[in-house]
Amino acid sequence: MARILVGIVGYGTIGRRVAEAVMAQDDMDLVGVAKTRPDYAAIQASRAGLGIYVPKPELAEAFESSGVKVKGTVEDLLSTVQVVVDATPAGVGSSYKSLYTRHGVKQVYQGGEKPDVAQVSFSSLCNYEEAIGKNSVRVVSCNTTGLLRLICSLDKSLGVRSVRAFIVRRAADPGEYKKGPINSIVLDPPKTPSHHAHDVKTILKDLDIETAAVIVPTTLMHVHHVRVRLSKRASKRDVLDALSESPRIVVLPGRTGIKSTAQLVEAARFARPRADIPELVVFEDSISVSGDEVSLFQAVHQESIVVPENIDAIRAVSGLEKDPVRSISKTDETLRIGRKYFFV
Amino acid sequence: MARILVGIVGYGTIGRRVAEAVMAQDDMDLVGVAKTRPDYAAIQASRAGLGIYVPKPELAEAFESSGVKVKGTVEDLLSTVQVVVDATPAGVGSSYKSLYTRHGVKQVYQGGEKPDVAQVSFSSLCNYEEAIGKNSVRVVSCNTTGLLRLICSLDKSLGVRSVRAFIVRRAADPGEYKKGPINSIVLDPPKTPSHHAHDVKTILKDLDIETAAVIVPTTLMHVHHVRVRLSKRASKRDVLDALSESPRIVVLPGRTGIKSTAQLVEAARFARPRADIPELVVFEDSISVSGDEVSLFQAVHQESIVVPENIDAIRAVSGLEKDPVRSISKTDETLRIGRKYFFV
Repeated sequence: MARILVGIVGYGTIGRRVAEAVMAQDDMDLVGVAKTRPDYAAIQASRAGLGIYVPKPELAEAFESSGVKVKGTVEDLLSTVQVVVDATPAGVGSSYKSLYTRHGVKQVYQGGEKPDVAQVSFSSLCNYEEAIGKNSVRVVSCNTTGLLRLICSLDKSLGVRSVRAFIVRRAADPGEYKKGPINSIVLDPPKTPSHHAHDVKTILKDLDIETAAVIVPTTLMHVHHVRVRLSKRASKRDVLDALSESPRIVVLPGRTGIKSTAQLVEAARFARPRADIPELVVFEDSISVSGDEVSLFQAVHQESIVVPENIDAIRAVSGLEKDPVRSISKTDETLRIGRKYFFV
Repeated sequence: MARILVGIVGYGTIGRRVAEAVMAQDDMDLVGVAKTRPDYAAIQASRAGLGIYVPKPELAEAFESSGVKVKGTVEDLLSTVQVVVDATPAGVGSSYKSLYTRHGVKQVYQGGEKPDVAQVSFSSLCNYEEAIGKNSVRVVSCNTTGLLRLICSLDKSLGVRSVRAFIVRRAADPGEYKKGPINSIVLDPPKTPSHHAHDVKTILKDLDIETAAVIVPTTLMHVHHVRVRLSKRASKRDVLDALSESPRIVVLPGRTGIKSTAQLVEAARFARPRADIPELVVFEDSISVSGDEVSLFQAVHQESIVVPENIDAIRAVSGLEKDPVRSISKTDETLRIGRKYFFV
């Protein structure tokens, strides 16, 4: 079987995880990753045997003196791969677009880029088909991915008329030591809707959705409170069934005693590499259904939720897998994602 | 070879890790762990196939209804094992002492207990021999373990005359969601010395040591700034050599770019289960030597630094291994601890 040659530009929170996920696939080969600084992540990548590429040849010396072997330049990487995953910091990806295009590689961007960076925004459970064979797609951000997983799963069996969501965002990723706030609640932004509603609509164009968001001083996951109006009256059982049938969503039982992101991540530490939680976690006891209205709490692991979506996106743009169900299932089995692999 | 039968009472931050570490030894068998509540840790222990014991038979029902199979009572556990590791919350262990003693089991307590709970306080690099064959030992706390590793390593080759340490403590463990402070620096206590100096002296009785401590709102490791006066003038090379020859100490090079606990733990997430760092981490660039005075920064991972010490303590009290070097080396190899297993 043809294997898709993949390169990753940017080796931070998302890039590192996508690199590992690509290596776990039998239909992809990771050619290498591009790094700008020879920091601890570069040292670890080098030790793990990854091919490391730098933006300019003159940077190689700084890498080699930190014990990091350099395989070539980003241009070298781009002339080898078929698909590039851009995992550079938000907004930087678009500045690489002309370079990627010049090399004729298919492009997978992250949600930090503006939607017009790519031909289509992407969420595996919602619009895999739209991305098939495209030259460029943009995997929507972690919060948008979480919202879309919920919405598309409920819509499939119960129909969704409208969504109102309140998003409590983590302020930084665990390794970031320069970012704030440290003691404040930031209205993000102080008007509604927050950008998340717009971002959901890049995929579900006609959805009636409003969102509001705050940023709080934590590094452990986002939490959403979501109100969904269904197309028809439903029972809690109906909602539970819809969520249970959906991949990448886990309904967390109240008997676990988990009611904080601290406990959830702590439990994951004993079961998952890096305590990653790529599943959308819905708190079972929080699910309330009245007539056609559903409300619930859900938690989104900002570092890992988009990783399986990136793998599906690579497969979709390559054109090698046209069936979303097969791609999603392959990704989830190789990465051990979903209810049967959950840790509590 | 005779295998030591071990039971663990308390399955929190330390207990869970010691359980896993015992299972990794070929001279020990983990009979089971005692839990008081059927929370997510109990569910995970049950899934991992651990024997679970409860304080009272009537608690079994609550566990079983959470899907956690119960093997017996704590008394059942104690009548089977030869060594019990008490990893209950600070101060609770002493209330179990009479029960342990009645069952004639050897006891390993944690540093949260007062020193008089046991015949001897314990630090592998300092006084393994004193614990051999004892009925009860107390592994000193994480901060004290970190200080003692440094002191005994420097003392071995260079001699230590006095120690002055400033300790910046993390406020809670990552899974704890009820503990503070969230926005304050707590003087701990507002007089000197802090209890750490006393605790070091439970092992190095005549050492000239003073310590002061504050608590800050973080969950990621403690940081110490330590000033040591040596018995003689030394060079930075001498200090580096002394630290490099010592097990369980890693000197972290500046080229890694790591200057925060956030980065250190983040790097560990990509290499270690739970991002555990049982080694004492000394920041190379911070080591300053002038005449006979050494100063440096070091970081202590509160959740895992005492785990290898607990394994050594089990071996010491059992009387089966009288050579500290052999026990330490066996523990470190099985748990992949030390410079050659370090992650950056």
